Amino acid sequence: MQKSLETSLSPLLYPYKLSNNSFITVVTDIFRATTSIVSALDFGIETILPVKGVDEAKKMKSAGYLVACERDGKVLDFADIGNSPSDFWQPHLKGKTLAFSTTNGTQAVNLAKEDALEVLIGAFINLQATAEVLISRNENVIVLCAAWKNLFNLEDTLYAGALAEILLENNFVTHCDATKAALQLWLEARKDLKKYLSNASHRQRLRHIMSQEDFEYSIRLNTCHIVPVLRDSKLIKM
Amino acid sequence: MQKSLETSLSPLLYPYKLSNNSFITVVTDIFRATTSIVSALDFGIETILPVKGVDEAKKMKSAGYLVACERDGKVLDFADIGNSPSDFWQPHLKGKTLAFSTTNGTQAVNLAKEDALEVLIGAFINLQATAEVLISRNENVIVLCAAWKNLFNLEDTLYAGALAEILLENNFVTHCDATKAALQLWLEARKDLKKYLSNASHRQRLRHIMSQEDFEYSIRLNTCHIVPVLRDSKLIKM
Repeated sequence: MQKSLETSLSPLLYPYKLSNNSFITVVTDIFRATTSIVSALDFGIETILPVKGVDEAKKMKSAGYLVACERDGKVLDFADIGNSPSDFWQPHLKGKTLAFSTTNGTQAVNLAKEDALEVLIGAFINLQATAEVLISRNENVIVLCAAWKNLFNLEDTLYAGALAEILLENNFVTHCDATKAALQLWLEARKDLKKYLSNASHRQRLRHIMSQEDFEYSIRLNTCHIVPVLRDSKLIKM
Repeated sequence: MQKSLETSLSPLLYPYKLSNNSFITVVTDIFRATTSIVSALDFGIETILPVKGVDEAKKMKSAGYLVACERDGKVLDFADIGNSPSDFWQPHLKGKTLAFSTTNGTQAVNLAKEDALEVLIGAFINLQATAEVLISRNENVIVLCAAWKNLFNLEDTLYAGALAEILLENNFVTHCDATKAALQLWLEARKDLKKYLSNASHRQRLRHIMSQEDFEYSIRLNTCHIVPVLRDSKLIKM
């Protein structure tokens, strides 16, 4: 059976009815929430609790959890760490559970869990691993771009296009204009992704708060081979 | 002064804050509301009243107005005509006022009027004329894509890209990823717009209700040299 692939370019455009079919949702927020989640679980962090608001993150801190929290790209003062992938690469965090709240990404995870059969976390760094999981399953797929404060952004859209390139060669079909557009954008951008995204609005927005190392790390393909999945509101390695 | 160009890929993503600046909004719904509005005013219809709901359109009919009304591409039974550009090309309609309600386009017009300095109606058929008006004005611009039931569609996005191509060479700048994406899509699509859009989801959706003539008319550039503008909730020739 052919499976359907759709793309939601913003949380405000999700979910749309997939002819009432069930679907797996892949949430992506390249700069940087989902890149950091993949990186963290790959590094050895056991569990990430995606938390919506700052207040909820503060409560988790009071309850004794380690907390990663940023808003507008900046670490909040009560948090243990921020939203940079490298923030999570600390040996004492291995095996631990962290609460994590970001401007866009973790809110998209919480939105996705309301409707999807399953929620996976996608980023360029685990592109192929995520594609392989989806190919192995007999389900339709929606890619949910976390976007920037609900506005379209290029990096998440390009990820949707990169995933579409693989899935459409592997028994997926799409009737979704957003997926077709994302794929076309990706086929051009991948020739030099770094140059292409250097001018993206969100990269510019984060110029002073996201390091060049984080930027380059976030757009490298397939450096991690794990796929985070949401189970009982917890993100764990599949 | 450089002027800012932004693109809203769906009514759900409009308006976004343009640093609190004021702006002119160009509404586009290529298949077919804005194409038909441009065509109708160019043909000689005096005034079009954009009406939101079917109930409101029925009331206008009862009040003695001529009414153009479709939903999901089909003419409603109480209406005088539907949403095809050629529906408006009737000599007895010249100089008349029509109420007009469609699935996507006229609702986007009503949304736009809440925030914009001025609301213009754009389509491929009046691309250059619209660009010239915008170039002559000292205002920021947002292109509002009517989309399909709030979902991203290719044809409206390509129009945004086509307009961007002209404006960005004429004292406009953009920091908006949606505009950059629309421009890139357009630069590819314009090589063979007919072929490119033949596979667009909305074209497929309208396959049985939009004629090939309407399709080809809607994607032809610059066949009309007028720009509809919203004044006191009425669309008239500028």
